[in-house]
Amino acid sequence: MSDGTPPREPLEHLDEAECLRLIAPGGIGRLAYTGRYGLTVLPVNYAMHEGTIVFRTAYDSPTDQDLRTGIADAEYKVAFEIDDIDPGARAGWSVLVQGAAHHVESADERASVQAAAVEPWAGGERELFVRVIPTRITGRRVRRPG
Amino acid sequence: MSDGTPPREPLEHLDEAECLRLIAPGGIGRLAYTGRYGLTVLPVNYAMHEGTIVFRTAYDSPTDQDLRTGIADAEYKVAFEIDDIDPGARAGWSVLVQGAAHHVESADERASVQAAAVEPWAGGERELFVRVIPTRITGRRVRRPG
Repeated sequence: MSDGTPPREPLEHLDEAECLRLIAPGGIGRLAYTGRYGLTVLPVNYAMHEGTIVFRTAYDSPTDQDLRTGIADAEYKVAFEIDDIDPGARAGWSVLVQGAAHHVESADERASVQAAAVEPWAGGERELFVRVIPTRITGRRVRRPG
Repeated sequence: MSDGTPPREPLEHLDEAECLRLIAPGGIGRLAYTGRYGLTVLPVNYAMHEGTIVFRTAYDSPTDQDLRTGIADAEYKVAFEIDDIDPGARAGWSVLVQGAAHHVESADERASVQAAAVEPWAGGERELFVRVIPTRITGRRVRRPG
């Protein structure tokens, strides 16, 4: 559809404040980490709490076992992606949070994150809280080319 | 809601045939790879083609540069996640494809994947086809706890 005008840049980079605003409501995000079978991505239901990402996972589930192994290795780097895309309109945004994950172990921290009241999307008994402290937050918005 | 019956297992593991059936229509998936800033996850518009995942990316975009660097390192392992989740119902499925990514370079392979007619979700001129050949396909379905 070349009409002589330069193509509009379809990707707009979002600053950190805009990213945080977009992901503030919580919902479904995708957690990526290096698991026992390699790079793994799973959807989880998350909430934002004091600038960090909180979600729950079942004690001793494969995800928990992977995270435990990773977290035991010291700082466990993960990525967390949140997006809202309308495939029909080919428009939307995505935010990528890179950071370190840890289990919420102390009673104080547990009480604090429980206030975030994040519900596990898988249902059932999910006893472990995992928290991701962002070290890098980037995002982009895609518009339908003009 | 304990009524004395044992809780239904909320996670059902899906076999490879069921995973392939679920992801066959294509659409939005999330590509995870190790980029220059660490673990990276981005949404892309994909199509299935002869049992492989095909998507397009812009020549010389950050994603392309990352993928080029990775692919040049030999077999570049990536993960590709597709899901369909209803947060309200807390039900849905997710599929994880782990495999190796490569650029589609040869004219023959390019002609073949062009038949898949995958549209880039970011719009604009996207000249590169990337193909992920699965080495491991796993999936799970989540039901609202009974």
